[in-house]
Amino acid sequence: MDIQQILEEILAEVQPLLHQGQVASYIPQLAAVPADKLGMALRTVDGSVYAVGDAAERFSIQSISKIFTLTLAMQLAGDALWQRVGREPSGNPFNSLIQLEYENGKPRNPFINAGALVVTDVILSHLDDAKATVRNIVRVLCGKADVDFDLTVARSEQATGHRNKAMAYFLKSFSNLDNEPERVLDAYFHHCSLTMSCLELCEAVLFLANNGIAPLSGDMVMSSSQVKYINSLLLTCGTYDAVGDFAYRVGLPGKSGVGGGIVAVMPGHFSLCVWSPGLDASGNSLAGTKALELFTTRTGISVF
Amino acid sequence: MDIQQILEEILAEVQPLLHQGQVASYIPQLAAVPADKLGMALRTVDGSVYAVGDAAERFSIQSISKIFTLTLAMQLAGDALWQRVGREPSGNPFNSLIQLEYENGKPRNPFINAGALVVTDVILSHLDDAKATVRNIVRVLCGKADVDFDLTVARSEQATGHRNKAMAYFLKSFSNLDNEPERVLDAYFHHCSLTMSCLELCEAVLFLANNGIAPLSGDMVMSSSQVKYINSLLLTCGTYDAVGDFAYRVGLPGKSGVGGGIVAVMPGHFSLCVWSPGLDASGNSLAGTKALELFTTRTGISVF
Amino acid sequence: MDIQQILEEILAEVQPLLHQGQVASYIPQLAAVPADKLGMALRTVDGSVYAVGDAAERFSIQSISKIFTLTLAMQLAGDALWQRVGREPSGNPFNSLIQLEYENGKPRNPFINAGALVVTDVILSHLDDAKATVRNIVRVLCGKADVDFDLTVARSEQATGHRNKAMAYFLKSFSNLDNEPERVLDAYFHHCSLTMSCLELCEAVLFLANNGIAPLSGDMVMSSSQVKYINSLLLTCGTYDAVGDFAYRVGLPGKSGVGGGIVAVMPGHFSLCVWSPGLDASGNSLAGTKALELFTTRTGISVF
Amino acid sequence: MDIQQILEEILAEVQPLLHQGQVASYIPQLAAVPADKLGMALRTVDGSVYAVGDAAERFSIQSISKIFTLTLAMQLAGDALWQRVGREPSGNPFNSLIQLEYENGKPRNPFINAGALVVTDVILSHLDDAKATVRNIVRVLCGKADVDFDLTVARSEQATGHRNKAMAYFLKSFSNLDNEPERVLDAYFHHCSLTMSCLELCEAVLFLANNGIAPLSGDMVMSSSQVKYINSLLLTCGTYDAVGDFAYRVGLPGKSGVGGGIVAVMPGHFSLCVWSPGLDASGNSLAGTKALELFTTRTGISVF
Repeated sequence: MDIQQILEEILAEVQPLLHQGQVASYIPQLAAVPADKLGMALRTVDGSVYAVGDAAERFSIQSISKIFTLTLAMQLAGDALWQRVGREPSGNPFNSLIQLEYENGKPRNPFINAGALVVTDVILSHLDDAKATVRNIVRVLCGKADVDFDLTVARSEQATGHRNKAMAYFLKSFSNLDNEPERVLDAYFHHCSLTMSCLELCEAVLFLANNGIAPLSGDMVMSSSQVKYINSLLLTCGTYDAVGDFAYRVGLPGKSGVGGGIVAVMPGHFSLCVWSPGLDASGNSLAGTKALELFTTRTGISVF
Repeated sequence: MDIQQILEEILAEVQPLLHQGQVASYIPQLAAVPADKLGMALRTVDGSVYAVGDAAERFSIQSISKIFTLTLAMQLAGDALWQRVGREPSGNPFNSLIQLEYENGKPRNPFINAGALVVTDVILSHLDDAKATVRNIVRVLCGKADVDFDLTVARSEQATGHRNKAMAYFLKSFSNLDNEPERVLDAYFHHCSLTMSCLELCEAVLFLANNGIAPLSGDMVMSSSQVKYINSLLLTCGTYDAVGDFAYRVGLPGKSGVGGGIVAVMPGHFSLCVWSPGLDASGNSLAGTKALELFTTRTGISVF
Repeated sequence: MDIQQILEEILAEVQPLLHQGQVASYIPQLAAVPADKLGMALRTVDGSVYAVGDAAERFSIQSISKIFTLTLAMQLAGDALWQRVGREPSGNPFNSLIQLEYENGKPRNPFINAGALVVTDVILSHLDDAKATVRNIVRVLCGKADVDFDLTVARSEQATGHRNKAMAYFLKSFSNLDNEPERVLDAYFHHCSLTMSCLELCEAVLFLANNGIAPLSGDMVMSSSQVKYINSLLLTCGTYDAVGDFAYRVGLPGKSGVGGGIVAVMPGHFSLCVWSPGLDASGNSLAGTKALELFTTRTGISVF
Repeated sequence: MDIQQILEEILAEVQPLLHQGQVASYIPQLAAVPADKLGMALRTVDGSVYAVGDAAERFSIQSISKIFTLTLAMQLAGDALWQRVGREPSGNPFNSLIQLEYENGKPRNPFINAGALVVTDVILSHLDDAKATVRNIVRVLCGKADVDFDLTVARSEQATGHRNKAMAYFLKSFSNLDNEPERVLDAYFHHCSLTMSCLELCEAVLFLANNGIAPLSGDMVMSSSQVKYINSLLLTCGTYDAVGDFAYRVGLPGKSGVGGGIVAVMPGHFSLCVWSPGLDASGNSLAGTKALELFTTRTGISVF
């Protein structure tokens, strides 16, 4: 199978979709990203790398950061984490407060915003400098010392993130935040502001396709059991309230962000990342989801 | 009818209920109020006053303040107010965020917390010093220049009021707060911290039984139409998610607060206030509601 | 006050609204009623009668029948009724199943469909022939032996009433129906199909304004306490999810039906009925609600 | 890997759990099944078969039948099916009506009861005798001509299935059933009453692990794409509101029934079935889920 050629064909094929999505506009930094950006990269566990389009250009990874914070929280807190956050799909929008009220402040899973705030709170309770630690983990995983937060983005999120603030105070009212809401939000917004390229993201999540071993360093990031857990969470909860559709069409564990990035992994084989800023109604990259669907359809590779 | 004697009989009759309710405990200042406090006062529009028990002792009026802020907001904004807050019963707890999300940030009515925050925001947009104005209105209405905020209570609410903060940021996320959430909350918590006695509250709300004229000053607080509007809102929305039960048992427009006070009015005739700190499951004074029920049953007086 | 003249002025004034509402169309019999029908009648407790427009023409009273079935169920079951149905406003559409599921099959109040089904079930458990008894009560109350069900309407409702059937089976699944759902529905649909005129409805509900005594017969229909209870339920729950708005604008206990009728009572004074088939978004007669609002505004008469 | 030995070890290991679950008791036929039944079977796509415990004993497959009716409906209706039923996890109990009301009668997925009723309706609109066709498909798939409905079970379900009836009428009220609710329910209850053994179920679903080819007959049941779709739906929606937990612990697409059976597939490799009647709080076999978890943990085999 000629992966490179397949990626190139897909790149051409989804071009007409680039302007059908809506670029996120709630902060100026995201709104300013050109809608015609499109990149795709794939890394295999045995070292091959494929890249097309804007695969080397950095973008705001946003919710994709939830993979890294969850990884860290699982290392720090172990199974105790699941007393404070569930692992079921929510069936509701990522920023909904309804379920949180019905379920007494325990977020459904770590990939909706409320869950990620609890995950961040767990990290903050274990570490003096959560932000630097998260950034460092990502740097080590992708082997790039200059991966960093975009402080303008973080500040914009802070200034406009009323809904996330509501969520943090709501969690606090249920005693499901140990730290001050403002401190949790500050860390959370920083993690979301990380900027990385498709190539870097592929590298950074490759341990999820490699039984927990980071190929670059050879380090064991987590046990193979824990990797299976994260992959199952990605499949059932990773793409907002479109997880069923994503599993149906793409068939791989994946995580999307409102910056237009999506990472996916094929356990035992490879990681894959696509970036295109135009989003569909569920908040996932429209052309990006299509590109992943074409990839698994054309190659016949999926977990199903 | 010997009102004084009826009140005295009721006072004796509800004594056994004083310890069946739960004194609010979310802030130390409320938790410290003795459960056996019990007062009741009635003022007629033609000047008669009746009082029994602890009717002259001041307590934290809490949500009863929502009558005064609504009155002020109706004076300031007129019907435009109803574009930002509804006038339907919510059927949900007073501090629920669920309905707010389903209904895109428009609170059901001005007497649930979310609605009162919007009402406070409206006042803040019209007045430089909302807190002082609200306090002054109350002072004039009850004719006591020393009625004041309890700053310790206001600070305690601020320190523990995570749910109200969540609500304010949630409203802001729907663009239904014009001012900064922290500023709205500060004013809101101050209004709730007003301390007044049954006698003072009866005086202060008597305009609602008197076609809008404050008997003390002779001032027209609002038009008779507006008074009817407030009374209808009190009847359908004034006692949290127990409005139906309250209307059924008491049959008067009324407003309760978690400090254990309840005011009620009989349009054209009198205002009535009871105070007993033990609350029932809905957050209304348990013995207080019973006392009002006994009063309307015994006298045969109600709007129905 | 010249009541007759006021009614005539109002009749003229709301004419332009007759075609702004939507005539109920879910069954052909209701859909066929001309939108320009408009009648209004008022009866005082001391025997005066006023009528304008189509006040003598019969129409499908639909949910107004819930007053009569509740009256009967309160006579038959007393306070035990409230173990099976609540008395709080629902805050949801009249035919919603959501709250019913959250609250384990106990309807919020007797005036939403689910509550009326439980009320009907209670009657069926006490009486061999519920339908005939309800019809007879209505006949006696309004003094017209030929008031009857419209069997074509009842059959149409039965054929199309999937949502009411869903509700009945849902109640049964929570063990809150003792009789077979089909039997309860049959009685329910018959009660709703009663046809009466404004004049007849005014007569039939006049006991609610007269301390429980039916003026025609001098019979005591219920105690004055029970009358107060029904009036309070009408005010807080009688007009679907527009009770707050109705109380605000009209200020009288009232009950509406999708046939376009609305009855209202001023306790101690009179009953009032208006009919105009065009409905507003909440399912209440659009011109009818306006007519009632004009009446209480112009006369200054309301419970507030 | 010695599969037979692993299954035997697991059989022994979960014995202590047999009495921790609750055997379904809503109909006498299910309530009568001994709680200590336990069977497990596995079939590989290349013909190997492993079985332990009560793997050859037939039980009521209940919701596992939803796999077969979905398979048939996808063959009959193709992608048009998804206009009437979604493919997202519901996040609510399998028999909830709440989401159905919020989402205007479109069930979230084909594996909750409402979705399966729509699937059954689709089949009924295409076939004269849906029940016989579904039974025949199952017979052919598992190669046993005597697999049959348990008519006593079907009748019991019909007599007590008020909630399912409510659901069917609710769907009808949203025009999302073409056939009469009673007819749809009759077929649905029959499908659920099929009795099969673990060994038979493994055979019957093996096409899902074999790219759509039924190994017994060599027939193509569906395309390999369609198989991937069903497997993705099983993983994201197959085990009620515990899909996340099931994916996390077991890591295989699976479907459970209240009879205590669970089938799971490892695409490309094998099908697996376990039966133990005691259910956990989500309605999945308690010991059965544990047995599957032990299997994938011990063998290291899962889709993740």
